[in-house]
Amino acid sequence: MTKSKKVTILRDHQDSLILQKFGGNLRKIREKAELSQEQVAYEAGFSRSYYTEVETGKRNISLLNILKICSFLKIEINDIIKLKDFSTK
Amino acid sequence: MTKSKKVTILRDHQDSLILQKFGGNLRKIREKAELSQEQVAYEAGFSRSYYTEVETGKRNISLLNILKICSFLKIEINDIIKLKDFSTK
Repeated sequence: MTKSKKVTILRDHQDSLILQKFGGNLRKIREKAELSQEQVAYEAGFSRSYYTEVETGKRNISLLNILKICSFLKIEINDIIKLKDFSTK
Repeated sequence: MTKSKKVTILRDHQDSLILQKFGGNLRKIREKAELSQEQVAYEAGFSRSYYTEVETGKRNISLLNILKICSFLKIEINDIIKLKDFSTK
């Protein structure tokens, strides 16, 4: 079993930075495509509030949900985030 | 709030194929690097059983966990899966 935390909002600093980087990059891509949060959320099958939390780095989005967004925006995951975007130990 | 399913194992066929593709590719990369499941699981901070479920496509892995694996294996997410790996509607 994986370790589960009851208060998932308490992420370590590095994890928060990664999610914020991902969300910020996604926002830039969406805005460049002149799409609203509502449009992307609707097309990917999410609620607007969930999608907003992804863009603000509050959600640790799953692979399937990332790919739903990528599919609609016609982008690759690497267009949103790359390993070199954050320093590794 | 996002829609949650009580029986998460009942994924639609397309989603299952994506997770299996991801897991299968990850397995190939790990085997090429001559690493065991235990080694990758340990270094990424997962249990062996969780990691096995990722490789067999039974888990919808999160962004942070994908990046932990990528960081240890020194690969990018696109090395594991690309949008063109699966047909889109």
